[in-house]
Amino acid sequence: MTTPFLDSSLRGRSLIGGDLGGDSAGIFHGINPATEEKLDPPYHTATLEETRRAARLAGEAFAIYRRTTGAQRAAFLREIASQIETLGDALIKRAALETALPDARLNGERDRTCGQLRMFANLVEEGSWVNARIDQGNPERKPLPKPDIRWMLQAIGPVAVFGPANFPLAFGVAGGDTASALASGCPVVVKAHPSHPGTSELVGHAVRRAVIESGFPEGVFSLLFDSGKEAGIVLVGCPEIKAVGFTGSQRAGRALYDLAASRSEPIPVFAEMSSINPVFILPGALRERGDRIAEGLQASVTLGVGQFCTNPGLVLMEKSPASEEFSRRLAGLMAGSPSGIMLNRNIRTAYDNGLAKWRSHAKVQVLVAPGESGVRASAALFQTDASTFFDNPELAEEIFGPATLMVRGTRDELLRVAAKLEGQLTATVHGTDEDFGEYQDLISVLETKAGRLLFNGYPTGVEVCSSMNHGGPYPATTDSRFTSVGTAAIYRFARPICYQNCTQAQLPPELRDGNPLKIRRSIDGKFDAAMP
Amino acid sequence: MTTPFLDSSLRGRSLIGGDLGGDSAGIFHGINPATEEKLDPPYHTATLEETRRAARLAGEAFAIYRRTTGAQRAAFLREIASQIETLGDALIKRAALETALPDARLNGERDRTCGQLRMFANLVEEGSWVNARIDQGNPERKPLPKPDIRWMLQAIGPVAVFGPANFPLAFGVAGGDTASALASGCPVVVKAHPSHPGTSELVGHAVRRAVIESGFPEGVFSLLFDSGKEAGIVLVGCPEIKAVGFTGSQRAGRALYDLAASRSEPIPVFAEMSSINPVFILPGALRERGDRIAEGLQASVTLGVGQFCTNPGLVLMEKSPASEEFSRRLAGLMAGSPSGIMLNRNIRTAYDNGLAKWRSHAKVQVLVAPGESGVRASAALFQTDASTFFDNPELAEEIFGPATLMVRGTRDELLRVAAKLEGQLTATVHGTDEDFGEYQDLISVLETKAGRLLFNGYPTGVEVCSSMNHGGPYPATTDSRFTSVGTAAIYRFARPICYQNCTQAQLPPELRDGNPLKIRRSIDGKFDAAMP
Repeated sequence: MTTPFLDSSLRGRSLIGGDLGGDSAGIFHGINPATEEKLDPPYHTATLEETRRAARLAGEAFAIYRRTTGAQRAAFLREIASQIETLGDALIKRAALETALPDARLNGERDRTCGQLRMFANLVEEGSWVNARIDQGNPERKPLPKPDIRWMLQAIGPVAVFGPANFPLAFGVAGGDTASALASGCPVVVKAHPSHPGTSELVGHAVRRAVIESGFPEGVFSLLFDSGKEAGIVLVGCPEIKAVGFTGSQRAGRALYDLAASRSEPIPVFAEMSSINPVFILPGALRERGDRIAEGLQASVTLGVGQFCTNPGLVLMEKSPASEEFSRRLAGLMAGSPSGIMLNRNIRTAYDNGLAKWRSHAKVQVLVAPGESGVRASAALFQTDASTFFDNPELAEEIFGPATLMVRGTRDELLRVAAKLEGQLTATVHGTDEDFGEYQDLISVLETKAGRLLFNGYPTGVEVCSSMNHGGPYPATTDSRFTSVGTAAIYRFARPICYQNCTQAQLPPELRDGNPLKIRRSIDGKFDAAMP
Repeated sequence: MTTPFLDSSLRGRSLIGGDLGGDSAGIFHGINPATEEKLDPPYHTATLEETRRAARLAGEAFAIYRRTTGAQRAAFLREIASQIETLGDALIKRAALETALPDARLNGERDRTCGQLRMFANLVEEGSWVNARIDQGNPERKPLPKPDIRWMLQAIGPVAVFGPANFPLAFGVAGGDTASALASGCPVVVKAHPSHPGTSELVGHAVRRAVIESGFPEGVFSLLFDSGKEAGIVLVGCPEIKAVGFTGSQRAGRALYDLAASRSEPIPVFAEMSSINPVFILPGALRERGDRIAEGLQASVTLGVGQFCTNPGLVLMEKSPASEEFSRRLAGLMAGSPSGIMLNRNIRTAYDNGLAKWRSHAKVQVLVAPGESGVRASAALFQTDASTFFDNPELAEEIFGPATLMVRGTRDELLRVAAKLEGQLTATVHGTDEDFGEYQDLISVLETKAGRLLFNGYPTGVEVCSSMNHGGPYPATTDSRFTSVGTAAIYRFARPICYQNCTQAQLPPELRDGNPLKIRRSIDGKFDAAMP
């Protein structure tokens, strides 16, 4: 426990199971977004051989790790959380340097990260998540005996995880993807986001220490660095990898999906990608509390310099004097919003390019022009009419940052726009009870478009709980059947297996007679009411 | 109810919602496999426009059908079952003509088909399948109020279904894929297997009558005929289609998967494809009851002329005098097996070609050579050693028909073979309790390879129940996370949606306060013990 490798000083190298990566030709640095200065240490890109070795070790570890008990994995996940907390301020300081996110936000994100790890620990310790089902046999049944069949979920295999720039902790090295995969019994190989390598390495050391403390095989966790695409491409191509979790851009997510689908053995990719998160403000709500909604919306659009996948990028209203008043009010608020430092130069440039496209559009009106250049970005507000929006699909592309587009039209036009929307993480409706009754058709359409439907709220802020669905139809994700936040995220990394006429000794404890783990099970299609 | 279209006479045309397809350039016939004679009527290939119209109608119907209640869909599914039963002997006669399957088998398959429809009817009428989860809000929580969030599964959208040749009813037009998709609230467009068009049309009429009886939109069901690939390719490319269910060959299933993955909006494909269903016979079992196992295996290999996806195509044993005796015994039984008529000429030819490959292999020993030619096929048995099998991956390719390959080697060699196996629908182990204890490592490997693990049984025969998993890692299926048989098959065609701070009036009844549907729900992560 006192070897140099076990402390948390930054070494700028990948963690290949228990080993440090070696020198490589490719070197990159974390960048301080506020000063655009390089941060030490330099990071060595994972080599082809290191990447393959990480996958191989994960494959070997799977044979052992998949058979650990829920209690063992729970202890491991809790140890990871403790190790992250033990990193203390050093983690927050490094993350702040690499992301320009405020300390309060990073502290909150660390709490969320550790909270998620403990949530999955509780889930697998309790054990009912495996959805055990038993159909009892009947040797007397005619014409054929009825077999005894017992069904449960088990880990799918080693998982490759790709985190985004905008959540260095909660969707990072030990974020929701890693936590849910480890919880189900899958080893994880993380490809760190190059925007915050030091933060990633610190958390990587914490996970590695937890692997050692738990006595698990080293291949349960590896961490790869690469500022380019190569390591990720090689990783997803490795035969040992059986699923991919990704959060980031549509382009990168789709590329990984295509790669995984083209393997000789295709594997599932859970890419959480892009969403413009439409907000419909219905006439009654606009009349009743337009000013308050404008304030809430401004806060949601500009939160964290607009760098959330749930950022509301599209606001839809009927044309009316009230909606004109709302536009003016929102414009005033947006113009008064403080500017902020974006996560990195690429995101900053993409924001400028996106805005330039809207600004140069003949039929898009600029209500608030972005006032900043350099590293800081400021809020922007645009407006167009529903038919222009309908006819120009490029206006529905996500602009990542504190900007939103207001679209106004007739009731029918808004309904047509809703029906044409691509898949979304969220859709929001502001209305009175009368509005909701009158716009039942709109709500019904939005149910088919979004993973989460909000009423009289704002989409930023994703509650971590058992009923959260952070997902949605493509291109919000590449698999609308699963969430990446909340306890249900574990189901991405599990598959069913059933045992037919298996002896008690060979059955996993989840399926044995007498229910030794006291989990919720269904017997002959009925749940045991006495169980949790 | 008395228009000519409503009777069940065969018209040889697709059913595009409520309309009959028109003339087309492409014509094909059902073929009597026993005589190889064409059966009337001729079948008109669905045109491009008809195929697109079926998808469009399905998309339109989805808006209404997805909002029907479980009770309404249950009544519809039961009506389909009744309409199929009303077809009476005409259905069995036509199916026998087109498939050469015996009446007893077809009667059993019809019962299973109607049983599945009623099983899904019961499931959605009861309603708990939607996995309702509620996290109650807390406006007082600090620093941020906790929202009220409610989660449930809803229908994914219109589904394209492709049935196989070997199950004209249970996996056919109103088979498990169609039944589970309709149950969840998804309209269905079936591409009929060209090997039994008349059977398909009869069942199609039955479904259509049930659509009319239920007052549902016509687009809830369409049926397309095509002896080639075109209609299927066009169908899977239609933007309204949101998922694909397929049962058949690996080549065709993979082609559909690739097509669906390459769409601008990729969609999930549930292709149940190929499997050689390895059977390991451990030393104790071999000694104790080798003769009985040989009898059981012979019956399983030759059942239905070997035309089952769960047919055991690979038998593995340690080299020993007992396994040599077993080989001789099995060879005697296989040589005495009656020949049978295969489903169609393509399958017959593929069987011959597969056998020819094994026969011409220098290191494969022919124990029982196939004795028949023409339309009838007879059983065949081959043998090789584990290292040959390990080094020649083509020996692990599925041969569809009543043939199996015995592989013998050392314990370690068998373990290496197991570890190298591709994904399987099933894996079987025959053993004594002592065997199972000693071969724990083998069983653990097989858990990662198969969807269903059988002990001291035979893989043919798939029980339809809540704990069946008819699935498995690729290439057994294209999505190991789902089963195509049993109640859990419905989860292929549903996705979660959550409602945040939604008013009671706007919530689906599944999620309303007071639980009006009396379904099983979890509240704040705990299940209500009083509920089913």
